[in-house]
This record gives sequence, C-alpha cells and structure tokens, in this order.
Amino acid sequence: MSDPISRFPVADPAGLPEPLRERYADVAERSGFLPNVFGALAWRPAEAAAFFAYHDALMDKDTPGLSKGDRELIVVATSAANDCLYCVVAHGAIARIRTRDPHLADQVAIDWRKAPLSPRMHDVLEVAVRLAVDPAAVVPGDLDRLRGHGLTEDDVWDVGAIVGLFALSNRLAHWAAIPPNEEFFLMGRLPRA
Amino acid sequence: MSDPISRFPVADPAGLPEPLRERYADVAERSGFLPNVFGALAWRPAEAAAFFAYHDALMDKDTPGLSKGDRELIVVATSAANDCLYCVVAHGAIARIRTRDPHLADQVAIDWRKAPLSPRMHDVLEVAVRLAVDPAAVVPGDLDRLRGHGLTEDDVWDVGAIVGLFALSNRLAHWAAIPPNEEFFLMGRLPRA
Amino acid sequence: MSDPISRFPVADPAGLPEPLRERYADVAERSGFLPNVFGALAWRPAEAAAFFAYHDALMDKDTPGLSKGDRELIVVATSAANDCLYCVVAHGAIARIRTRDPHLADQVAIDWRKAPLSPRMHDVLEVAVRLAVDPAAVVPGDLDRLRGHGLTEDDVWDVGAIVGLFALSNRLAHWAAIPPNEEFFLMGRLPRA
Amino acid sequence: MSDPISRFPVADPAGLPEPLRERYADVAERSGFLPNVFGALAWRPAEAAAFFAYHDALMDKDTPGLSKGDRELIVVATSAANDCLYCVVAHGAIARIRTRDPHLADQVAIDWRKAPLSPRMHDVLEVAVRLAVDPAAVVPGDLDRLRGHGLTEDDVWDVGAIVGLFALSNRLAHWAAIPPNEEFFLMGRLPRA
Amino acid sequence: MSDPISRFPVADPAGLPEPLRERYADVAERSGFLPNVFGALAWRPAEAAAFFAYHDALMDKDTPGLSKGDRELIVVATSAANDCLYCVVAHGAIARIRTRDPHLADQVAIDWRKAPLSPRMHDVLEVAVRLAVDPAAVVPGDLDRLRGHGLTEDDVWDVGAIVGLFALSNRLAHWAAIPPNEEFFLMGRLPRA
Amino acid sequence: MSDPISRFPVADPAGLPEPLRERYADVAERSGFLPNVFGALAWRPAEAAAFFAYHDALMDKDTPGLSKGDRELIVVATSAANDCLYCVVAHGAIARIRTRDPHLADQVAIDWRKAPLSPRMHDVLEVAVRLAVDPAAVVPGDLDRLRGHGLTEDDVWDVGAIVGLFALSNRLAHWAAIPPNEEFFLMGRLPRA
Repeated sequence: MSDPISRFPVADPAGLPEPLRERYADVAERSGFLPNVFGALAWRPAEAAAFFAYHDALMDKDTPGLSKGDRELIVVATSAANDCLYCVVAHGAIARIRTRDPHLADQVAIDWRKAPLSPRMHDVLEVAVRLAVDPAAVVPGDLDRLRGHGLTEDDVWDVGAIVGLFALSNRLAHWAAIPPNEEFFLMGRLPRA
Repeated sequence: MSDPISRFPVADPAGLPEPLRERYADVAERSGFLPNVFGALAWRPAEAAAFFAYHDALMDKDTPGLSKGDRELIVVATSAANDCLYCVVAHGAIARIRTRDPHLADQVAIDWRKAPLSPRMHDVLEVAVRLAVDPAAVVPGDLDRLRGHGLTEDDVWDVGAIVGLFALSNRLAHWAAIPPNEEFFLMGRLPRA
Repeated sequence: MSDPISRFPVADPAGLPEPLRERYADVAERSGFLPNVFGALAWRPAEAAAFFAYHDALMDKDTPGLSKGDRELIVVATSAANDCLYCVVAHGAIARIRTRDPHLADQVAIDWRKAPLSPRMHDVLEVAVRLAVDPAAVVPGDLDRLRGHGLTEDDVWDVGAIVGLFALSNRLAHWAAIPPNEEFFLMGRLPRA
Repeated sequence: MSDPISRFPVADPAGLPEPLRERYADVAERSGFLPNVFGALAWRPAEAAAFFAYHDALMDKDTPGLSKGDRELIVVATSAANDCLYCVVAHGAIARIRTRDPHLADQVAIDWRKAPLSPRMHDVLEVAVRLAVDPAAVVPGDLDRLRGHGLTEDDVWDVGAIVGLFALSNRLAHWAAIPPNEEFFLMGRLPRA
Repeated sequence: MSDPISRFPVADPAGLPEPLRERYADVAERSGFLPNVFGALAWRPAEAAAFFAYHDALMDKDTPGLSKGDRELIVVATSAANDCLYCVVAHGAIARIRTRDPHLADQVAIDWRKAPLSPRMHDVLEVAVRLAVDPAAVVPGDLDRLRGHGLTEDDVWDVGAIVGLFALSNRLAHWAAIPPNEEFFLMGRLPRA
Repeated sequence: MSDPISRFPVADPAGLPEPLRERYADVAERSGFLPNVFGALAWRPAEAAAFFAYHDALMDKDTPGLSKGDRELIVVATSAANDCLYCVVAHGAIARIRTRDPHLADQVAIDWRKAPLSPRMHDVLEVAVRLAVDPAAVVPGDLDRLRGHGLTEDDVWDVGAIVGLFALSNRLAHWAAIPPNEEFFLMGRLPRA
C-alpha cells in the first residue's frame, strides 16, 4: 500500500489554518497516525473544515437511542452498500473499538441482515441502507418504526444525516481513490492485553 | 403545498448564532424568501453551518472549465437520478438563471443524454451521474476524460465534490421530506422584461 | 432547440389522408402549434392513425374514478420512470391545465411518492409505475386495490392501457429523439389572467 | 389452462363493427382458433381496431433488411425481457413458422446473445432489447450500427416501432393476465409432413 | 445447431473411469442420446463425478412435499432467471415428462408468477427465485412459509440445495456455452400414443 | 457468536462414512477447528462428499496462470458480490495465508476494482464477478482476454468453475445461515512470529 493517498494534490497539514490544524493534530495524536481522509482533504481547507465539523456534530454523540458504536455501524453498513473501501475499513475499525466486538463490523459490512443485532439496530440498518441506495423508497412509516424503538426526534434525524454524510464521504473516497491507512485493518481485532 | 417544510422540528432562524444568521438573512434577501432547506436545517445549527460552508466553497465559483451554471447542472442531473424533488426544482431554478436558458435544466433533469450540451458537459454529466448512482464504477479514465476537456485538477475535484455534497443533500431532503418553495417552480422560466 | 423533430424523415401533414389530416389540423388549432409527436409520425400515416385513435380512446375520457387530469398524471409518472423528455414535458403541460395545478405534474414527475395526491391516485400511480418498469411484478391484488378505491372495471383497464400506450410512446420518442415543442415548457404554469 | 382469457369482461367478437369483425374472422380462419389477445381486446373495439392496425402496419412487411421472421424475433426477444408469457409463446410460434426453424425462437427467448444469429440480427436484437428495458440508454450510434448492416430508414424505424408496440402489448397481457392459446405451444415445432 | 458442445476441449466418455462411465452410459441409454452437459464435463472427470453425484442426491427423490416434477420446476424457474438456455430447455423437457403437463414448464420459465401452480409450489418458486437472484434477501420467514406448506426439513433444505446446484450449473453452461441437444426441444410436448 | 451453525439439523461428523470422515478429520487437524460449512453439510453425506470433491478438484491446484491465492481471491470477490458472510470471512482468511498479504482479501471483498492487482488478476476478477452476478453477459471475448494473460484452457475453465461452485456455496450458506467460525476473522492478519 505504497499507493498515493489521493488522485489529487496533497497539501501539508502544517499549513492549515487554525482551528483546523488543531483538529488534524488531535486526530493524529489520538490515532497515532493521520487518517488518509484528513490528508486527502487538506488541499481544500474550507471543505475539510466543513466536513469534519459535520462529522463531529453527528458522530461524537452518545444517546440512549443511538450509541457511538451504533452510529459507526450505520457508516459501515451504508459504506459497504457503496463498496467504499476507505469507509468500511476505517469505520469498521472504529466500530470494533466502540462496540468492543471484534466481529460485528465485518458481519454488518458483508450481510447486515444476518448480523447479531438488536431488533432496534436491525431496523435502523434496514432503513439506513434503503436511504443510501434507493432514497425515494423511504416512507414515513420507516421513520415511525425507528421512533417505535425509542429513538428520539434527534436520533431519527441523526440516522438520516449520518447516511447522508457518508453518501458524500463514500463518493469523495471513490473519486479521489483514498486508501485506508494500513493501521485500520487490524485495529480492534485483538483482545486488550 | 401547505405541507410542513420538514418532518422534524423547525427552529426560528432568528435564534441562529452569527455568522450563520447573516448567511440566512442574505439568502432570504437575495431570493425574496427563505429556501426551505435553510428552514429545515435551522434546528441543527452546527450541521447547517457546515452544510452551507461546504456548499459555498463548491458552488459560488466560476472557472473556465466549470461555470456556475455548469455546477448547477451537475446538481440537477444527479438529484434527478436520486428522485429528489427539492434539489431538482430549487437548483433547476438556479440553473435556469445561471445558464440563462429556460429549458436546459428540465432537459437535463429528465434525460441529460439527449440534452443540447457541449461535449465537455456531456462527459461531465455522464461521469457525475455514474458517481452518484454507482460510485465504485468510476475508473481513472473517467477523470482523465474530464481533464482532456480542459478541466483543471481543481475543476475535476469539484465535479466529484459537488456530486458528493448533493448525495448528502438529496438524502436529507428525502429523509425530512423537504418540499421546494413554490417560488422555485416558475423562477427563470419567463423572459426578463 | 433548433434540433430536428425526429431522427427520421419528416412528412408534410398537408399530404395526410382524411380523417387523419383533420385530426392534425384540429390539434394544431387548439394548441396553437403542431405537437412534435404528430410531426414525427406523419411519415407513417397508418401508424399515426392507429396511435392517435388509441390515444383518444383512452385519454379523452372523464370518469368519476379517473378524471382527464388523473390520466395525464399516469402518463407523467410512467414517462418519468422511462426518462422520456417529450412525454414528461408535453403531458406535464396538459396535466397542469387539466388539474389546474401548476406544481403537481413536476412533483409527480420527480417523486410521485411524496406528491400531494389522494390515496386513490397514490395507489394508481404506484401500480402504474410498477407496470411500466417491472410488469411481471403486478399481482391481482394490485388491481383489487384500485377497485377498492372506486375504479370501475373500465377505469382499471384504462390504467393499464394508458401505461401500455405510453410504454410505446416513450420508446418512439427515445428512438426518434423527438423533442418537446418549446411551448409546452411554460404552458399551465402562469395563473390565468 | 381452463383459465379465463382475461381479468376483464370478454365480449363476443360477433358484435364487433366492420371491418374489425372481418379482421377477427380472418385470423380465426387462418389460425384455426381466435388468438386470446383478440378475444381479450374485443370489449374495447376502438382500442382493438387501433392495436391490430398498428400491428399489421409493422409486422406484415417483408424487406431485405428485416424479414417477417426477423420482426417476430424482435417480438420474442423483447417480450422475453418483459416476462410476457402470451407474447413469447404466441409470437414464438409465429417465429418458428416464419423462420422455418423449430429452435431459434426458444434460443432467442432464453438467451438471444448466444443464439445462432447473423451479425445483423445480433445487433438488431441487442439494441431492441436495450430499447425495451432501458430506453434512455439508446444512443445515435445504435441506429447507425443498424444502418451499417443494410437496414433502410424504414427498417430502422420499424425496429423501434415494433419494440414500442410490444412494450404496449406485453403490458396489456400482464395487466389482463391473457394466457396464450394452447395451440401456440406446439405450433411450428414438428416437421411438415 | 452444428455448434460445438463446449468452448473447451471435449473428451471421449469412453475413457472415463468407472463408475462414472457407467453413469454416462446409463443416461445415454435412457435418453437415447448423451445430454451435452455430460459431454462438456467429460474432460474433467473429478468434477463430472462430483456434479452428477450432487445432482442425483437432490433430483432423484420423490417426497410428499417435493415431487420429482416439483424439483425440475425449481430448476426451470431459477435457470430462466439466469437466462440459461441449456438448463431451461433440458430441464423443461424433463419437467414436462415428470409433471405430465406439456405447458407448465414453459409457463414457469417465462412467468412463474402467473403459472397455474398450487399455493405450495407458488411459494416454493418465489423463494427459490429470490435465493437464485438476490440470496441475501432470503429471510427466516421464507423457510417457515415452506414448512407451513408441509415441506419437511429435508424438503426445505432440498429447495435451497437445488437452487444452489443450478446456480453452479447455469454458470458452467454460460461459461462453456453448452447448447441443449436438439432432442430436448420437443420432448414431452406430444401426447403419448 | 453462540449462534447455531445451521438452520437445519446438524449431524456428528464421527458418523460419516469413509473416506469423507477422513476428509473432515484432516481439515479439522490442519485448521485446529472444523470449519462450519463442514459441520452444516454433515447431515447430508452424499452432498458433502460431492461438494468437497468438487472443491478440492478446483482449489488445491497451483498453476502459473492461476495460483492457489488467485483462486481464493476469485472466491472472495464473487462471494462478496453475493453478500456471503461465511465465504468472504473463511476464504478471506485462506486468501491472506496463501497470498501472504494481510490486506488484499479485504480490498478485493470491498472494491476489487481499486485493489492492487496485476492486470491479469484484475481481468480475472472482472469477468468472474460478471459471471457471478449477470452470467448471460459473459461474451467469448471475456475468455479470450484471460487467454491473452497466459491462462491455459484449464485455467480459464477453472475460473468459471470456481465462480460456479461458490455460486452454489454462497446460496447454501445463505439458506442455512452458516456463520463463519470465529477463528477465521483474525487468521492471517498478524505477522508470523
């Protein structure tokens, strides 16, 4: 994987304006490396700032109806439906960490229907994948079914917004051919020592 | 069309933080009304700020390889592929104004392949629609073909990023059932007096 | 739109046999122009006679279960599913006039599922679009559902026959690349003075 | 196969107006039975007259570029793509008689791509099936390829018009659930004595 | 049909090891000819032995829940969904003989949904075709529905295994372009003298 | 993952007839566990014997044109196209071991088009996936392209036969809901000590 991280010019994150540069430094420190989607977006600071602000507003949230791990599984299921290597591998890794389950992300990526999910998450993923691949086919009853599982109005909105954000992200990753960092492949697969 | 503008709670834009409130006031003044996507996103200020920042970075740009009108036509073609009423009608209106053509947006929305486009824009829309509906099928040669029409690296990136942003936007509009404002339907169809 | 009205030879309607010539003159007088599908079919008088006879038998009928406007909306929804510019624009115009609604035809063309329709017309369009795009998937219960909305046997037949006739018409328009007349784009969009 | 010949009322052809009654009598005499599509359409004389006039204008023609057998094979291939039992069985029978080949119709119905066809008919069926199932995907080069095989303008038009007419016919047969007459299944399969 | 029976080298069955040679001789004697799938597989004795052993374990079985004729109809319906000429024609012939019905195999091949089937076989074919074309969409309730029609656990397994075996068989026939023997086309169509 | 290994009865492999019992013992010893597809097939000894004989004839072969690792990647790519969790995870593990690459199987499973493959393997996977999902669309030129990469007639046959065998295997795994053994998820991901 000595492939370039993008089909487009790659900028040095050191030149980014604050507070974006800090956001980059923060993720690099926490992860131990800079995820390639950050690197690939660095030549477009305004879009990078908007993208990560949108991301943080939706993904760094833990509610009774939709945990951080649940949110990552939405990303995994819909990104798999879009054949997006970067998002399946990178968010599969994060999902493994957040759900503390070394297998569930792979199960969801390959066949979410048979994955060992709660009825709530089964229905969340069903409607999420439909919104990802055939958005006109979503009907009001789909949202009601999520409400019936205890999702709040905020949670239901988040399901749709996460699907939307990664519809964007998947297409950026395909367009620029952004590969996942090698580290993501193994992350969360081994028991903590 | 007395339908609500969203399936979710709608906030008063007057309560938005600066500079987002200014962005809302600006579009309302220029348009003569607040486009419903602004209204529907107001209850989520962080996402609204990110969304419109992303939008402005891509759409308010006029380059030799990709004019403002061209950018709107990308939105129209891909939003039509996603059956998104809001985006086809609202951006169809903007496309009519920016291309100064009262028919081209409808032609592109219904059958872009037979629309009277330049060879450059024909190829732009072909790859844009493919990225919208089957993103894994985009190949490096698709991007090269756009470069061959004179698009710069920035222009090529923009094609993909616009498709991505409206992949998000289309799904938000479907999820929240955001209707286009009535004003958009007729906008740009009549000759200027 | 100085494009030719067909990829095939175009005959002068003045040379058509009676009563077809009268049918052509009549539509030209009522519309103020000769719709291009008439022009494109003129070189094939037998087919033109059959086509317009079939059309008139189905479309010039107003029943309690299926008004003239309803019939046009079936044409709009299924022609949109077939990406047919001519039929969406021309019959969208007629639908605006017959339903006296300047927006409904566009709503139906882009996303009939969210259009403000009666439950009867929602179900009519659902089964009509299924018959248009996946005809083997129509089941007896689909017809029963229409009967349950008060459609007579004649009305139910008409739904299927209209879908069938425009399955033909859409393919002729694609094959010959028949463009809609410019007049159709604006027709029915402005309030009557 | 004691099933009814239609889901809709069936009229006695004896009551049809001339010259339609004569057309019905003629086919019944030549075939030895009344094909069910005639029976099913009898309750709608205007549509029946138009349908069979359209049919005869396209199918009762033998040109160097498109023989009567070739025309039937277009019907078989596109009707198979639409899963239409009536048209595949009835026109398969006619195709066997007109091509004097007991196997070709079945080969075309199930997998036209591997059927032992001339390069001309291979390309005719390729574009015909595309027009049947994805009409917007037909491009001008498709028609040119048929011209390159020696089809005249009239022949090329006929290819598209036949596809269109049976797009209608297939949907009528699905909608009314018209079964093929038993006689068609065996017709043309046995060597003439 | 003087086409070769395979795109690959064809071995003389006389050189096959026992007991495979006997299996070949047996089918040739019972049929009066060697079905081409036997001929095409002869150059790969290990695969041929495995294939026909698998076949015999599933197809030469007659249970109250799934007769030999029912099993052949599963092959016909799913092979038709895969456009496989060899399997539709050869197993259509066997289905005609085993069901003693000269029309049912054609009806199932072209449109199983409207074929005159028992509710049991209608549901068997529905889930079989889904397993053939969209296997992830099979849900536990599909198997339960078959159990509700009286199929035993063995019968339900057989439905899936037959679909699977012919998913393999269809792909071999497409890959090697194996044509059906001429004899199959007419077999079972004529009343026994 | 305390889920059962099948929706159907599970037999004790100890009761299998020779030489199948030996085959089971052998794989259990080499793997350190009995892969679940062996367990799930044990209640059907004849099918199990045929399945593993077919498997061994195709997969335990190393040729210059198609190595053992290449063969596993065909399984991974086509099983991913069929959303088959068992085959993607189990054969992904074997592919990691045979290619000595900890990432390639995941790359192929999620988006084979952008995976770092030789031109030969890129074309092998392209035609393999087409045979898996749309078998009628395979044309003679597809096989010729593989020959052009140096594959022998045997190798080309093997490509199609492997796709076919796993078309069967994927459907068995979906039908019986066979989960991958936990051990497969991590296998081949860690550097050898």
